[in-house]
Parts: sequence; C-alpha cells; structure tokens
Amino acid sequence: MIQIAVLGYGTVGSGVVEVIETNKADINKKAAEDLAVKYILDLRDFPGDPYESKVVHDYNIILNDPDVTIICETMGGTKPAYEFTKQALLAGKSVCTSNKELVAAHGPELLKIAREKRCNYLFEASVGGGIPIIRPLNYSLTAEHIDGITGILNGTTNYILTKMDKEGVDFDEVLKEAQEKGYAERNPEADVEGYDACRKIAILSSLMSGKNVNYEDIYTEGITKISSADFKYAKQMNKSVKLLALSRDTEDGFFAMVAPFLISREHPLYSVNGVFNAVYVHGNMLGDSMYYGRGAGKLPTASAVVSDVVDCARHQGKTIMCFWDEEKVEVADRKRARRKFFVRVPADKREAAMGAFGALAEVNVGLAEEFAFMTQEMSEAEFDEKMEKIGGCLNRIRIMA
Amino acid sequence: MIQIAVLGYGTVGSGVVEVIETNKADINKKAAEDLAVKYILDLRDFPGDPYESKVVHDYNIILNDPDVTIICETMGGTKPAYEFTKQALLAGKSVCTSNKELVAAHGPELLKIAREKRCNYLFEASVGGGIPIIRPLNYSLTAEHIDGITGILNGTTNYILTKMDKEGVDFDEVLKEAQEKGYAERNPEADVEGYDACRKIAILSSLMSGKNVNYEDIYTEGITKISSADFKYAKQMNKSVKLLALSRDTEDGFFAMVAPFLISREHPLYSVNGVFNAVYVHGNMLGDSMYYGRGAGKLPTASAVVSDVVDCARHQGKTIMCFWDEEKVEVADRKRARRKFFVRVPADKREAAMGAFGALAEVNVGLAEEFAFMTQEMSEAEFDEKMEKIGGCLNRIRIMA
Repeated sequence: MIQIAVLGYGTVGSGVVEVIETNKADINKKAAEDLAVKYILDLRDFPGDPYESKVVHDYNIILNDPDVTIICETMGGTKPAYEFTKQALLAGKSVCTSNKELVAAHGPELLKIAREKRCNYLFEASVGGGIPIIRPLNYSLTAEHIDGITGILNGTTNYILTKMDKEGVDFDEVLKEAQEKGYAERNPEADVEGYDACRKIAILSSLMSGKNVNYEDIYTEGITKISSADFKYAKQMNKSVKLLALSRDTEDGFFAMVAPFLISREHPLYSVNGVFNAVYVHGNMLGDSMYYGRGAGKLPTASAVVSDVVDCARHQGKTIMCFWDEEKVEVADRKRARRKFFVRVPADKREAAMGAFGALAEVNVGLAEEFAFMTQEMSEAEFDEKMEKIGGCLNRIRIMA
Repeated sequence: MIQIAVLGYGTVGSGVVEVIETNKADINKKAAEDLAVKYILDLRDFPGDPYESKVVHDYNIILNDPDVTIICETMGGTKPAYEFTKQALLAGKSVCTSNKELVAAHGPELLKIAREKRCNYLFEASVGGGIPIIRPLNYSLTAEHIDGITGILNGTTNYILTKMDKEGVDFDEVLKEAQEKGYAERNPEADVEGYDACRKIAILSSLMSGKNVNYEDIYTEGITKISSADFKYAKQMNKSVKLLALSRDTEDGFFAMVAPFLISREHPLYSVNGVFNAVYVHGNMLGDSMYYGRGAGKLPTASAVVSDVVDCARHQGKTIMCFWDEEKVEVADRKRARRKFFVRVPADKREAAMGAFGALAEVNVGLAEEFAFMTQEMSEAEFDEKMEKIGGCLNRIRIMA
C-alpha cells in the first residue's frame, strides 16, 4: 500500500482524488501496488465530503508521517508550494505537481534535491494538462536531437482566438463570455498576456536543452491587441491567429518567444481549436511530431498528476531520468530572429510603407481606411526600424514559417 | 560500454546505425553509458561500407557473445525473426524491434520470456514509425481507462488517399506514381488491403486491453474500391476518406476494424495527410488525445528503435512494465457495430433504396447515373440486409461518428 497526500483540495486536487478512486483497478495494476490517499491538506474544511476525515490543516502532519511517500502538490503559486515541496523532497518523499509557476521558477533546484534524496520531482501536468508531453520528451524522443518546439499551451487564449475566428467577434466580447462560462479567470492577465504560456515554454525549452531557460528571459506578448479585423485578413490569407509559444535551438543561438502568430491552414497547429492544446516538436531524425489533447480542466490535469504518482510508485528509491541542469541558457535577443510580418497601417501611410519595405504583398479585405500587407523575411530589428520610419501602425502580427 | 547487434542491414537497420552515430552525444548521455554497434547480421556483404567489418552472416556469433546485451531486430517478417528473437531473449539479451508482423503474431509469448529472463522486448517502432505511441500508452496514460483508439497507421495508403483527395485522380494512377516514387511497394497488397494497419491496430488494441487481440480476428477492408467519384461526394459533405484502424472497448463488447471511413473536416484526423500517421486515443479522464508524426521512413523508424535501446540500457536486469497477456480478447462480430453509412447505387435503384432505408439524406454532385445518400445510424447487420434487398451497389463507405 502506498500512502499519498494531496496538497490543496481545489479543482486539480479534488480531481486527483477522483481519478485515483474512479480508475482504482487500472491504476493499482500499473503502480504494482495499491494507492491510498491518506491526507488532504487545505485551509478549509469540507463537511460532508467523503474525504472529509482525511483533511488536515498542518503540513507537518504529512511531513512527519513516514507512511506518506508520495505527495501531489496541486496548490499552485510559489508560496508556500516551494517550501512545502522542498521539505518533502528533503525528507525523501516524491512530489508530483501541476504547478507550472513553481516548476518554471525552481525546477532545476528541486530536481537536484530529488536526485540527492533518491526520490522524484515529476511535473507531467504542468504543461499541456493531460497531454503526455514531459514524458515523451524525457523518455521517448531519447534518440533525437530536438531543435524546435512550437506549442499552443494555453486553453483560455486558444478558446478566445477560436471564437473570434469562427464568429467574427471582438476580443472583449469573447473574453467576457469566456469569463461567464468559467473558461477564463476574473483576472485574466496570466492567460491573455501570455504569462502562463511563457512558464510552460520555459519548462519545455529547459527539457529540450537540458539546461535552464529562465522564463523571465522569454519575450512575451499577449493577445489583447488582436481584433476581428485581423481575423478578416487572416481568413483572406487562408490563415488563423494563434498564441504560439516557441523555442528554437539554432546555430545563431537559442530563441524563445510567446506571441500571436498567423499560421497557415496546412500547419497541423491550425486545426487545434477551442480549449485544446498541442505541442509540435522537431527532432533531427524524426522530423515533426505533435502531441494534442485537453490542455486544462480538472480530470485531464489530474490524470497527468496521477500518471506521475504511478511512475513514482514504480521507481521507489530510484530517481527517474530528467536532464534539466541549473546552468543557464543564454536566450538570444528576439531582434535577431528572422521572419515575415503581417502589417496594417492607416491608408495614408501606404506610400511610406511601400517606401520602407520595398517588396511587400498587399492584402485587401475591402477596408478602405487602411493598407495591409505581408513583408519579406527579415530580422525583427530590421522590421522594428522600418516600422518606426513609417510611424503609425494599426497592428502587426508575426507569421509562422 | 553497451554492445549492440543489429539484425538486418536494410532500410531500418542501416538507419539504426546512422542514428546512433549521428546523435551519439545526446544518446549516450540519455543511456547513461556509451552505445557501440558490435555486429550487423546480414546475408549480404557491404564492401566499402564504414561498418563493413561489423557484418557477420552467422547469428550464433551474436548469440554466443556475452558482450552483446541489446539486439535490434530490423529484419521484418516472422522467419527467421521469431526464432532469432526467442533465442536472444532466452539468452537474457534485450530485443528492440520495428517488426510489427512478429509483434502482432507472437508479442505476448516473447514478452513473457523477457519477463522471465529479466530483460526487455520493446517495439516502439512497430506502430506509427517514429511517433511515440507505445510508450505513451504504457507509461503515460497510466491513470486512464482507455476505451477507444482510432489510427491512421499506414503511410502508403494515406499518401494515396491524400493525393486522390487533393488532385481528383483515381486509385490506380496514384498507386503507380507512389510505386515509382518508392512510397508503395511493387507488391502493394500488405498496404492497400489494410493488412499492415491490421497488425498495428492489433498491437495497440492488445496494449489497450492488457490481453491479446489476435490480428486475424480483426475485420479488414482495403482502399482499392475507393474512386475519384467517392472523393467528389466526400468533398460535398465536407469530409475526406481515410483508411482508419480502430478499436473500441464498449459494454457491448470489444470491437476492432480496419476500413476506409468518411471523416469530417472538424476531426483532428482529417488533417493528417500524406505519409503522416496519427493515433487518436480516448481515455475516461483525459478524453481525446492525439499523437502525430512520420509513420514510416528510415530515420524516423530507426529513431524509435534507438529510443528502445536507450530504455533497455537504463533498465538492465529489469523488465519494463508492459501489460499484454496471452489471454485472448473476444473480438465482437463487426455486424453488431452501429454507425452511419454513405452509399452509391445506380440511379434505377433510387426507389428501392428509399424503400429499404426509409430515412436517408441524399448527396448530389451531379452524377445523373447514380443515387447517393447517407443512412441513419444502424447495425452493420441491418445495413447489409437492406443493401441485399436493394441489390446492386456502386460503393458504400462507413462514416466516422
């Protein structure tokens, strides 16, 4: 019997308990031992809940109980999750988490403690919810040199952008609806400004490089400036707008970015709609592969946490392979990245735009008051310079090659 | 240093050697030991090949060399691959294979020997080429009860169907071109009749159920009857035709089938084109997830074989979890499966069709000489019966729900 503690009885935490209960037979078979939830840590009480008697308010009860060998940290945030996780690992208890903030901020340090204490710090649920992506990167693509990851890593923004695309409505309206439906938070900043996707691509980039990519070094742009007009143009070009999180390991340096991109209908990420997420991975032998599924939600995320619990159960006293050192990756200046851009300027800037960019391809959807075009490929620095010269821009969106 | 032998120096076998050489640094780091190819077994000699000196013709040299602990079986077929694999496992040597025929025919027996001898029989490359799918099923989705798998598992037929869809040409013409380009074999039967996809879905179905799904029990239909007219109708319905391999674990029984299906534009498998493969998996917690990539080809397939080698290297003396018992799964009669159908009959059968089916939805693409329609959902038995009554059918294609 393996005794588990769940930290935080919110959406994901209660999902963990539900998954373990619902799929008991399958899970115990795969774990090769029976799993049991011994404690649930929460500030609140849950009178009437079938797990009411497991609820404790003092973390030390869990920490000091030698029977508890695996802890599910589903609290989110870094305080007190960081301290709790560190104490657990130092006590030789494995920790499985859905907490991307903590993993992005302290991953290598916590992994190091786990190695020293011969236990595990696993975080399959921290990226892509229920989509297996951490394990495929760590255990499946072991014969590959992975040099590119492109992800749709945030369900809220993908839901909003999909709605805008399909229904032609504007950002504010869809956001409001998403908030009412519970697909977006009251304070939607972490999602719509790209901060959530930034944490996730920092984690994937670190696993890709084996070193530490600091999320604060990743240029991040949200979707708040994307309008229904942008989608009109996108449609005209057989494209859509997606919030992409990407990293590229090139001869010119390691690039990483979160920003809205125009993406063509032929690209497999184009069809990733609504609350679905996907991660598109490029390796030097395999070429492109993609991992697709529900990127959030109670049960999908909980399922990923429990899959980590099973892995811990099968590897007691042994640390599972994970290459993520504390050594820092120098993230290259985004200004050196080369790509094409889509630009909309007021109609009276037409001449200026043509003068600055020379070769450009006009895109016309019948909006007389503006001039829209696609540029040639150029560095972001070069692009910024030309745009400054033109002065005055309605919007510009990067184009995914 | 871990010494490896490669059985068969054909496309995949030479790819294995190339992957190990090209990605040496990454692979050795992940294997936690250096890998070296000590022998290559082939009937032929390879004068001038950089690995010429490793080539041997007698399998006993490999079998009797205690230094060799991992064998890559990339010969294909069951003779002599079955005997060779069995002997290796009995000698405690792990075997990594791309050979879906052998895995489908003798998987549970070989896995049992591996367990007894504390070594491994791994077969990531046997399904979906380089797409990680065996490992995700075995190690990632461990908290799920998986009840449905739908795959595009054969690159040749998907290439042919994609070409037919995009270019409106007929089967024979595309097949000829595919043969000239090397995408289809001289004798294309195993691909176009669905036999290859059948082996692969038998393997995935077995892993899904934990028991043995015999490939001979799976109803299999190829793509040779699909015509350019079918694609005209498909387009009209916003669908395409794909050769799907599927299995469903339901309360009514375990269903498995390989057949062409009409699939809607909204379905993620719709966009899987050309030589790409994808596996769509349904679990009771996670819902749908999809794994996409190159389903064949020298380096992608070899990359999957080498990822198995890395896994063997990290688990010496320990058998990695794989639930696939010899106990047989009763595959339900396909006649009990329920679905909608698309049907084309000669124009003079219109009345008969309307009489037999009652409620049907006509599909018109301007071919006066025929009458085409979609049926309501019904059992395959019921459908067969009605079609018999009508007598005379140009084609009928199942519709994916």
